[in-house]
Amino acid sequence: MIIRPAKAADFDAIWPILHDVFRAGETYAVDPRISKEACRDYWMTTPAATYVAEGQGGILGTYYIRTNQPGGGAHICNCGYVVAEAARGQGLARQMCEHSQVMARALGYRAMQFNFVLASNVGAVGLWHRLGFETVGTIPDAFDHPRAGMVNAFVMYKRL
Amino acid sequence: MIIRPAKAADFDAIWPILHDVFRAGETYAVDPRISKEACRDYWMTTPAATYVAEGQGGILGTYYIRTNQPGGGAHICNCGYVVAEAARGQGLARQMCEHSQVMARALGYRAMQFNFVLASNVGAVGLWHRLGFETVGTIPDAFDHPRAGMVNAFVMYKRL
Repeated sequence: MIIRPAKAADFDAIWPILHDVFRAGETYAVDPRISKEACRDYWMTTPAATYVAEGQGGILGTYYIRTNQPGGGAHICNCGYVVAEAARGQGLARQMCEHSQVMARALGYRAMQFNFVLASNVGAVGLWHRLGFETVGTIPDAFDHPRAGMVNAFVMYKRL
Repeated sequence: MIIRPAKAADFDAIWPILHDVFRAGETYAVDPRISKEACRDYWMTTPAATYVAEGQGGILGTYYIRTNQPGGGAHICNCGYVVAEAARGQGLARQMCEHSQVMARALGYRAMQFNFVLASNVGAVGLWHRLGFETVGTIPDAFDHPRAGMVNAFVMYKRL
């Protein structure tokens, strides 16, 4: 497994992975009907950097780094990670998050913030905690989960 | 003083008010060098609604309402308020915030969230508390303030 910068041509492999996750509407605050072009913009064009995790079976995961707030807030980045369904449970999210912290430091960011980690996404919350992120906020009833109903979202933060 | 929906032609009066605030870089996480066109996009085009507060001297304040997160988070709105320097201390921010809560409910939002209220902006923090917002998060060293250095930012929230 290697993690490398995404190229424009990778998006055809990235899109089905993202589409599965966004369409399910259970973990990301993204319109489940997002178009491929809007998704390309969100994941590939507007971030500061996008990476893919590639194994023998091709691209199995992807993440982005973006500036979380402009102006006086521009020293904190935000990242989003997605792992292909077939590649889950193998530590890929952990690898990508660790990689992203190195890359974010190299880009000059001094902290990383996740704005919207759903309380129902227990695996992610636990992983981010183990990787040194702390919960700095809890937004009540922040997300309308298709099966769980209204769930809280956490703001999570780590100094780099 | 009336508060009414902003028309496209109002932006020529809105821009100097916003520009003063953004250029100072002390309260909003906006690039202090933001262009007039980028500012129009941010304040007038992408929000769900934009309002102006108009007195005998013309437009003295403005605010926007936007969906804070798409998809499963789309029931929570975000607002931003700016009062012209000459009109401060007269309760205009309070009037606009109260107005925005009525308008947000009419637009179907069920809660209002401020993502980035600077701890150094003591007046705003106090006002939002008095208007029923609670602090649900604190982001450490979130903003590089030109005079105060690194300051925390609060996430504030109110059910509508």
